[in-house]
Amino acid sequence: MEFEKKGILIVVSAPSGSGKGTVLSHLTEDREHFALSVSLTTRKPRTGEIDGIHYFFVSKEDFLKEIENGNMLEYAEYCGNYYGTPKDRVDELLSNGINVILEIETVGAMKIKKLCPDAIFIMILPPSFSALEKRLRSRGTNSEEDIQKRLETAVKELSCIEMYDYVVINRDGKSKEAADTITGIAMAEKCRVKRNPELISDFYDAKPDNEK
Amino acid sequence: MEFEKKGILIVVSAPSGSGKGTVLSHLTEDREHFALSVSLTTRKPRTGEIDGIHYFFVSKEDFLKEIENGNMLEYAEYCGNYYGTPKDRVDELLSNGINVILEIETVGAMKIKKLCPDAIFIMILPPSFSALEKRLRSRGTNSEEDIQKRLETAVKELSCIEMYDYVVINRDGKSKEAADTITGIAMAEKCRVKRNPELISDFYDAKPDNEK
Repeated sequence: MEFEKKGILIVVSAPSGSGKGTVLSHLTEDREHFALSVSLTTRKPRTGEIDGIHYFFVSKEDFLKEIENGNMLEYAEYCGNYYGTPKDRVDELLSNGINVILEIETVGAMKIKKLCPDAIFIMILPPSFSALEKRLRSRGTNSEEDIQKRLETAVKELSCIEMYDYVVINRDGKSKEAADTITGIAMAEKCRVKRNPELISDFYDAKPDNEK
Repeated sequence: MEFEKKGILIVVSAPSGSGKGTVLSHLTEDREHFALSVSLTTRKPRTGEIDGIHYFFVSKEDFLKEIENGNMLEYAEYCGNYYGTPKDRVDELLSNGINVILEIETVGAMKIKKLCPDAIFIMILPPSFSALEKRLRSRGTNSEEDIQKRLETAVKELSCIEMYDYVVINRDGKSKEAADTITGIAMAEKCRVKRNPELISDFYDAKPDNEK
């Protein structure tokens, strides 16, 4: 008897300054089990951005065609550009048994929640609000106005916490631990009875010879 | 910000022959995080059984008094003896941050489910029904009639699987892996947003100095 082989769609949100990027980079080192969902965008690539890695860069016409074809899990317009999640690639990864991580802000996450009842929703947080502020300031590259805006956005995002299944704290210098926690959550979810509808019939059918 | 410090009540059921005992003995080696709930019984101790370890051995009068005092999470009569779970000890362990494992058959588990909405329910299974039969026969100590009875009971228990949250497979020679899976499940459950109602207020209140 084997567990459900499909991957799990893991929706991850985090306020700016949570260190989400580092946590997720630890996770995706394990290519056998985790992959990031790459967004489609009509924005022009910035220096260093690679098509298929950072985004799939497409024309507005192609983006609109994808929407028409029902291939966008969610999408949004921001500063005149479209951004969205292509369904076909997510589905392909999931059916290959790979857990797909979808980095998305809370509004997009709510859309996904309606469309994908099997997805799990994780919010990554720094240890406290004051730690968040400290991290944003320590970057040194953000203006005071920008910092205030990011903090206001964080407050809005935190007010959506009830919509999330899990919260993972990213402590200073412990991003690997946070990544391991997410790996553990995915493993535990794989054991959920409701994710294994064939469990009992498989249990009766399996021959000892097939067991590993 | 710290996670909810209370332990989790982990209700574990498993058909006879699943190897549950070995799995749980690995878990309870970690005394800081796991403890078995010890049942109260009016049955006389058998050779080698220690009061407070295998059971709390009490008189029928004392058992009935515990029921009257509302201190039995669940209880049942079997072959003229009472068996049950004392609430006070479970609560004490949980409030000390220890996850309490309650080994119980499916009927008792259903009673607990109604009383303890925060408990999680895990069924430990061997890899297949034929493996279960093989394990029961390999013991060599059971009569054919006894084996058939245990298999019938297993079928009944398996029909209750939908009531459980998680299923953990105990593969031959891999009982430590099964125990680690249960540790992972408990860890993931600790990260559940719904188990951390103080999360957001703590997040705003916590000072960076308090962070570890």
